[in-house]
Amino acid sequence: SLVFDPTEHPHRRFNPLINEWVLVSPHRAKRPWQGQVEKPDVELRPSHDSSCFLCAGNTRVNGEVNDKYEDTFVFANDFAALKVDTPKYSVDDPLFKMTTEIGESRVICFSSDHSKTLPQMDMKAITKVVDTWQLQCAELGKTYQWVQVFENKGALMGCSNPHPHGQIWAQQQLPTLVTKKQIAQSNYYQEHQANLLNDYVKREVDDGERTVVQNDDWVVIVPYWAAWPFETMLLPKFSVSRMTELNEEQKLSLADIIKQITIRYDNLFQCSFPYSMGWHGAPYDQFSHPEWTLHASFFPPLLRDATVRKFMVGYEMMAESQRDLTPEQAAERLRNTSSVHYMEQSR
Amino acid sequence: SLVFDPTEHPHRRFNPLINEWVLVSPHRAKRPWQGQVEKPDVELRPSHDSSCFLCAGNTRVNGEVNDKYEDTFVFANDFAALKVDTPKYSVDDPLFKMTTEIGESRVICFSSDHSKTLPQMDMKAITKVVDTWQLQCAELGKTYQWVQVFENKGALMGCSNPHPHGQIWAQQQLPTLVTKKQIAQSNYYQEHQANLLNDYVKREVDDGERTVVQNDDWVVIVPYWAAWPFETMLLPKFSVSRMTELNEEQKLSLADIIKQITIRYDNLFQCSFPYSMGWHGAPYDQFSHPEWTLHASFFPPLLRDATVRKFMVGYEMMAESQRDLTPEQAAERLRNTSSVHYMEQSR
Ligand SMILES: O=P(O)(O)O[C@H]1O[C@H](CO)[C@@H](O)[C@H](O)[C@H]1O
Ligand SMILES: O=P(O)(O)O[C@H]1O[C@H](CO)[C@@H](O)[C@H](O)[C@H]1O
Repeated sequence: SLVFDPTEHPHRRFNPLINEWVLVSPHRAKRPWQGQVEKPDVELRPSHDSSCFLCAGNTRVNGEVNDKYEDTFVFANDFAALKVDTPKYSVDDPLFKMTTEIGESRVICFSSDHSKTLPQMDMKAITKVVDTWQLQCAELGKTYQWVQVFENKGALMGCSNPHPHGQIWAQQQLPTLVTKKQIAQSNYYQEHQANLLNDYVKREVDDGERTVVQNDDWVVIVPYWAAWPFETMLLPKFSVSRMTELNEEQKLSLADIIKQITIRYDNLFQCSFPYSMGWHGAPYDQFSHPEWTLHASFFPPLLRDATVRKFMVGYEMMAESQRDLTPEQAAERLRNTSSVHYMEQSR
Repeated sequence: SLVFDPTEHPHRRFNPLINEWVLVSPHRAKRPWQGQVEKPDVELRPSHDSSCFLCAGNTRVNGEVNDKYEDTFVFANDFAALKVDTPKYSVDDPLFKMTTEIGESRVICFSSDHSKTLPQMDMKAITKVVDTWQLQCAELGKTYQWVQVFENKGALMGCSNPHPHGQIWAQQQLPTLVTKKQIAQSNYYQEHQANLLNDYVKREVDDGERTVVQNDDWVVIVPYWAAWPFETMLLPKFSVSRMTELNEEQKLSLADIIKQITIRYDNLFQCSFPYSMGWHGAPYDQFSHPEWTLHASFFPPLLRDATVRKFMVGYEMMAESQRDLTPEQAAERLRNTSSVHYMEQSR
């Protein structure tokens, strides 16, 4: 009788953070690709682009003028999805349930240098980004229960401007995905008297098969239940539930690990690697949340090379996420890339 | 004090089929788009393409030769994500839970005419597709609890071949999204002694604001909780829980409604409209499922015109689906397009 081989046999893995399964069909990686081919982002850009809406001193679509900033620069999104002045209203019908939401959307320019993304920025500049995230969370967390810090990188990910930047959407209510993580972590805490992601990090670091990079404080893992081909989670090796709780040292080591993982990503397919990344932690309510671990996720779409993406469509939209290589294979490939950015390697 | 206006004020709507929320930010539709521009599919194709792997009589990648079929043609996917011969194995660890899965993946060519997609096919040909779906569900439903019928249309949706075709993935276990719908419909049935989607259809047909097209048996609605800009649900006006239960008349009227909605889609932006569509109904187990209503969903990515898509990235991946126009606005626009396919309108 056959013995189960994770690199050959279709199987489902369970994501305990959101209580959902992922179908792993690793033998599928062998199929030829005849679908859409993407334009890889290998463009060299100037340090300042006079037509860029995010560059220092430039004028935006709505006529506002950006500060002559040097490191980070935060402003209210000109087309915010959330607003402060929405009237309260809700309908509690089982089939037509709705509620208004208040909030704010901000843009964070990571650097005045238009040509560099996170992996190419120096430690001081990345630390400044981390500081800005923390300051924004502290400020917005006073008014809103949820502060979603995220970055869309690359045209493939709907990013309309290559200038290094991210966003922050703050709101009163917990978003869908966050509610799932709240429930799963609470249940685990109640059942095991332990923190789900703390337990998980310990076992992954011991095992090593899915770790990509680490330093004293942080580790990057391709989660056992990863859906996107090269999805990773950035996790602390210490107990922390919110961005606002990080001390100076932990922010420095966070900047280091961000540089490390984003360099590996760029090196994997020798391009500016597209992804969405975002931070999840305990809500900014008045409670302590021993069940929560602060963490970031990277969801990158590329599958085979800089031009072929994974489409989460069809079966994935109708039934379940599906992946074509194992998380262990993805971790190994990322781990084996150089720690020096490909554009800085001696040519 | 302000009065709530759904076309102006950010709000969240609840999807009772999967217990998830969607953020509606309709004022956002006004923002200019400077991101990725898609190539609209307006190509005229030949009726037979000798380089197409799906055309009748042609040889596929793996060397197999297609039948000289005329209407529909079904074959096992050459790179199936699910296989019949996977060994049984599972691990029940709260953090590293997995289980193997068995199943089959098939491809259905909708027609031997390479140049025509569903909206351009005649009623007889579409009815034949419906018949094939039903036969496949009956056959695969004997062995597998779940039979996922779906279609990926367009290069934008990862479809690698413009030949009109869909897929069927059958498997033993219920996929993630289906499990959510199973739970929600069961709970509603227990609480209200009524079928969730039956109740929903009645109220939508009475109201009319979100209906797009209908005939005696079927109605197409932009659901109150739609996530994709022009997402629709195709629902029966009668009680039916599985594809296998449709009678001849209901299959004919289904072919009619499929033609109607796909024509509206193509007409909306005058292109071959990309989407993922798929069918959900009661599992093929030995139980009757009075809580289940058979239905199809269409998830189309286009937002503004044939070249600008909605990116479900960043906030959407990290927090919650978000839409830029109301479902009512989307329904009105679809409803107001012509019932005659743009390529058949007198030029
Ligand atoms: O099977 P295809 O059409 O080659 O592939 C397409 O549909 C599959 C099923 O929805 C997806 O898993 C793939 O990502 C997509 O490219
Ligand atoms: O705000 P941006 O960068 O213009 O827009 C991008 O990010 C948003 C937030 O993730 C998404 O809702 C948009 O679909 C995407 O194009």
